[in-house]
Amino acid sequence: MSSTATMAPSNQSSGPVDIALRNRAMRVIPGGLWGHMNAANLPPGYPQYFARAQGCHLWDVDGREYVDFMCSWGPVVLGHHHPAVEEAAQRQAALGDCLNGPSPVLIELAELLVDMIPHADWCFLSKNGGDATTACVTIARAGTGKRKVLVANGSYHGAVPWCSPSLVGVTAEDRAHVIAFEYNDIASLENAVDAAGDDLAAIIVTAFRHDMSRMLEMPTEAFARRAREICDAQQAALIIDDVRAGFRLDLGGSWEPLGVRPDLSAFSKAIGNGHALAAIVGNDRFRVAATKIFTTGSFWCTAVPMAAAVATLTELRRVDGPAHMRIMGERLRSGIARLSAQYAMPVIQSGPPQMPLIQFEGDADFRIGTAFCAEALRHGAYFHPRHNMFLSCAHTAADIDAALGAADAGFALIARG
Amino acid sequence: MSSTATMAPSNQSSGPVDIALRNRAMRVIPGGLWGHMNAANLPPGYPQYFARAQGCHLWDVDGREYVDFMCSWGPVVLGHHHPAVEEAAQRQAALGDCLNGPSPVLIELAELLVDMIPHADWCFLSKNGGDATTACVTIARAGTGKRKVLVANGSYHGAVPWCSPSLVGVTAEDRAHVIAFEYNDIASLENAVDAAGDDLAAIIVTAFRHDMSRMLEMPTEAFARRAREICDAQQAALIIDDVRAGFRLDLGGSWEPLGVRPDLSAFSKAIGNGHALAAIVGNDRFRVAATKIFTTGSFWCTAVPMAAAVATLTELRRVDGPAHMRIMGERLRSGIARLSAQYAMPVIQSGPPQMPLIQFEGDADFRIGTAFCAEALRHGAYFHPRHNMFLSCAHTAADIDAALGAADAGFALIARG
Repeated sequence: MSSTATMAPSNQSSGPVDIALRNRAMRVIPGGLWGHMNAANLPPGYPQYFARAQGCHLWDVDGREYVDFMCSWGPVVLGHHHPAVEEAAQRQAALGDCLNGPSPVLIELAELLVDMIPHADWCFLSKNGGDATTACVTIARAGTGKRKVLVANGSYHGAVPWCSPSLVGVTAEDRAHVIAFEYNDIASLENAVDAAGDDLAAIIVTAFRHDMSRMLEMPTEAFARRAREICDAQQAALIIDDVRAGFRLDLGGSWEPLGVRPDLSAFSKAIGNGHALAAIVGNDRFRVAATKIFTTGSFWCTAVPMAAAVATLTELRRVDGPAHMRIMGERLRSGIARLSAQYAMPVIQSGPPQMPLIQFEGDADFRIGTAFCAEALRHGAYFHPRHNMFLSCAHTAADIDAALGAADAGFALIARG
Repeated sequence: MSSTATMAPSNQSSGPVDIALRNRAMRVIPGGLWGHMNAANLPPGYPQYFARAQGCHLWDVDGREYVDFMCSWGPVVLGHHHPAVEEAAQRQAALGDCLNGPSPVLIELAELLVDMIPHADWCFLSKNGGDATTACVTIARAGTGKRKVLVANGSYHGAVPWCSPSLVGVTAEDRAHVIAFEYNDIASLENAVDAAGDDLAAIIVTAFRHDMSRMLEMPTEAFARRAREICDAQQAALIIDDVRAGFRLDLGGSWEPLGVRPDLSAFSKAIGNGHALAAIVGNDRFRVAATKIFTTGSFWCTAVPMAAAVATLTELRRVDGPAHMRIMGERLRSGIARLSAQYAMPVIQSGPPQMPLIQFEGDADFRIGTAFCAEALRHGAYFHPRHNMFLSCAHTAADIDAALGAADAGFALIARG
């Protein structure tokens, strides 16, 4: 907590247990917490530490309950403690998890992914989204013998040197073969392709434009088709970074509705409903290249996350998870639109309904959004003002309506100024 | 299986269930399996797929049982299904694992690591060993404002572009600021330091020299001290990559017995007895730098592996795990020496007893070692001919003696030529 936050009224602080844990953390963890889950980046009052969860409900360490719209920033796609997933995980755990090689469940998962994802002829597994995007780039370079990788400005592909959003501790050479373009901007993509000359290995794009602190933007069909055409003409790899959106928009890969198929895709987050796993899938053009690169990790063959992933993907298919999340996301969106009109506080709602963002008009510094979220949090809804949110299959109409009640309190507060 | 292996006598094949799974895998996984656990790199007869495990015993998918000396290539340090670890993991899992932030167990683990490891003033967590080594290098660069990183020839620090053992798909620029030296060779280290000029960010070394297919070698005290002196003089970071050896040799870090403390260390593998986790620890000189880099991952705050790690480290401390593993490793080493003398087949035994390697004299192409391991496997011991092996706290004298019985069969076979 910054000193400003400490001075704020008590309804702007996280609870006393949370604050005590943060103070202990400051001694043994640099800055209190690394990375994207650091609550210092959230509105005042947001807790850092969580005690437990069930379905789409979270309890912080001070016993406060929230209807959750971050889903652990993506992984929790069926809801916490989903019985089919946890039973599968426990069944595998009772046999063995981290062995001298994989368990048969690896084959089951690989066959399921290849069956579900039309562009996938093969897959392999890792732990982080960044492992998967890095492996895709490495495979593209191995397969093409070329080096340049086109990356959209502002797109997040992981926190590793070639693509980290921060340049601290990163050298210029780590980006030597990265060329930037603007998402959804065909002319800018073509300029980047020209700059790559005869050295184009890959174009990598996120499933949609979900850069932090910016309106979300779906890929245009023209942009997607042009990226595909360029890669075909240049024999480069089209890579979709589907780490964040994968299995929420379309179980066959997020660009299936566009009719554009990548050569390589990176998945992670939702694949195992919170169990740590990532997957690289690709088509036969890059199969040999995938055998030639060396990529591995100590825990990449562990069986429990694979069993969880088989159960997660099977359940998502059975219940048509993307459709359920879309319906619930649309219910949230309609409710927010209604409140926006009622309070005459115009909002910008962007992104696919399963991964929405709510911004306020004229709120460039996010002051309104921050106050709105802080107040909604006090009333039991865990929103995010600047990052896309996530629906899950555990969200019911009643959960959405409860969250809209909390949003109503948020609108009331900001409408009062 | 290569066609050669398929033509070998049946006692040189893995079982029929294993072979059927491998055949299915070839369709959906490039080359059948990625990375270090690919059984194609093992002697004939080694299974690829495992059904279950208990303590230091493994069962493959064909029901064959082995006394295990790879411990899943390091992670399994207390033995499979250790009750204290699994109870802690299940207790946390019943509350929550992958939440919108960490659970209080994070603080417990961070405080335990800082308490156990004398050079650690702070820590943060990730999933892969390569995440941890990469973060150490990034922190060193951020903290020093310099770029050059000295890496020993042949040392393994992960399968990411700056340090992968393969150059396929890697660009020259990924290694632009890496300077090689020879492990344990002070003159070579000093030459590399000279080459870095005034741009030396870090020296990174593995806990001991454990390069694949090479005799293991402990660091000399003179080498360790010189590396420390150079880093002090140049205000560079001394980084120990303790991913493979950590918590097996010394619970305070593997260079504690040498009296040389690094600035930053990377741990993983054994930290959670098979639960996926890695840790970066450092001293206060690099605390601010650690707050400045951006490093994160979707699953880096998950609570179950942290609970497993607290239980694992607590148990290792309670039973003095390194001492137990040393005693069991020495029992194995003595027995092998006895058999070697008995069969007049001279062996080279190297490495710390907890992580031993057995090689045969004059066996540069590992033909003898491969035949020895294949025969020992048939008799129920899972050894490795070219990579250091791993003891665990689950190994008993009876397990070692059983493995020596299998080794006896291996010696008998190779002594017959």
